[in-house]
Amino acid sequence: MKLVRCIYQGTVRHGILEGEDIHLVRSKKFERHSITNTVIPLREVMLCAPCVPSKIVAVGLNYRAHAGELNMPVPEEPLLFLKPPSAVIGHHDAIVMPAMSRRVDYEGELAVVIGKPCRHVLPENAPHVILGYTCCNDVTARDLQKKDGQFTRSKGFDTFCPVGPWIETELDPNNLVITTKVNSVTKQHAWTGDMIFSVFHLVSFISQIMTLLPGDIIATGTPPGIGPLQPGDRVDITIQGIGTLSNSVVNELKP
Amino acid sequence: MKLVRCIYQGTVRHGILEGEDIHLVRSKKFERHSITNTVIPLREVMLCAPCVPSKIVAVGLNYRAHAGELNMPVPEEPLLFLKPPSAVIGHHDAIVMPAMSRRVDYEGELAVVIGKPCRHVLPENAPHVILGYTCCNDVTARDLQKKDGQFTRSKGFDTFCPVGPWIETELDPNNLVITTKVNSVTKQHAWTGDMIFSVFHLVSFISQIMTLLPGDIIATGTPPGIGPLQPGDRVDITIQGIGTLSNSVVNELKP
Repeated sequence: MKLVRCIYQGTVRHGILEGEDIHLVRSKKFERHSITNTVIPLREVMLCAPCVPSKIVAVGLNYRAHAGELNMPVPEEPLLFLKPPSAVIGHHDAIVMPAMSRRVDYEGELAVVIGKPCRHVLPENAPHVILGYTCCNDVTARDLQKKDGQFTRSKGFDTFCPVGPWIETELDPNNLVITTKVNSVTKQHAWTGDMIFSVFHLVSFISQIMTLLPGDIIATGTPPGIGPLQPGDRVDITIQGIGTLSNSVVNELKP
Repeated sequence: MKLVRCIYQGTVRHGILEGEDIHLVRSKKFERHSITNTVIPLREVMLCAPCVPSKIVAVGLNYRAHAGELNMPVPEEPLLFLKPPSAVIGHHDAIVMPAMSRRVDYEGELAVVIGKPCRHVLPENAPHVILGYTCCNDVTARDLQKKDGQFTRSKGFDTFCPVGPWIETELDPNNLVITTKVNSVTKQHAWTGDMIFSVFHLVSFISQIMTLLPGDIIATGTPPGIGPLQPGDRVDITIQGIGTLSNSVVNELKP
């Protein structure tokens, strides 16, 4: 099942995507039993980020080859950082390059969306607390990441967390091809089975630390092939079984 | 004006503290014009954290003497990290020591509470976007902080962000005495005027990166004197003009 959030008649609505049509649901959740009679063509709506996270927990260096290209050691335990909810944008929204940085990179990632409040989840129970999966771009100001040590500023700018286009609920997260293209040129092409820490292990590990809530996002780390973006670029992140998250890149206007 | 959130007749209510009495307000905001006739004695209610942040932006190494005690260089720009909203607890709630850590420290801090959505705020305009000030304990698993490099896990456990007891709206943040006591013994005693980056500078800097929203918290860094907590301890953080945030410490039960 593909779950969407979209703008319809001026308000944010939830819906279920079937083929090229969105079936709106009544409630503010994705409940199949509350489907309305309103069906709108996908091409006629503006999609929003498919969830509203209270937090975005991201994982650094979760593919060996990516740790290698950054000359960083492979971590013994998942290396966590947070992106602020204010960074979230949806499919087709623009990534804004901040004046503070000279180098802004794409990082295509598989994102987990949490479905139930949970804590101390065992890896084998992780599927029960996961709503589904979507694409995420962990946009990073690489120069500021190196300068600060802490990743917060470099990964926390407004628009630095594109998420979407929707949530796919039926998927084996350990066996997916993920591809990032910039202006139609392939830059990242990897297999989620190459993650150092699997999706279910990550959900379990993070839930030992903090309570996860519905809508929370876990960005599971980027594969090798990172590189810079320029104003005017278009980034497409495609994950097998989900779809493609597309965002353009623009320069920050002087405030 | 002192703004409180408390549990009254089973629901969370907002109120204004005058002396020993809370005057409940009608709305879910702190609006003086919507004061009700309901007055309840402070000692009869359970206080909640005084705001519900969409994010908690914290500042590392913002007092020279604290950077010194950690053998870390004084940063050229504010060093930011995030604590998850799931870590927030209120006055008198218990700090839970996680099984994953062998050393959990208190860090008393002045916290700024944002009052208006804002971005690109000039330092001289910062007072207009600040709702007020409160006490915060940036609880930190020191061993995990050293191990991870990134501060997220070590500062992100549930209960690791006590905030309160209330928000004081009239205060000069640059001229306050801040004291942390553990079991009535003074451990930190400092002056907010010794911050490397002032409160107004921090609000301005952070708002160049991310949109700040009402209720968001900026924890402005801890002064020297950090140290470990043990189960059974009580931590009191007192800031001149605000009041005292008190929390006990307990061990995590096996899940």
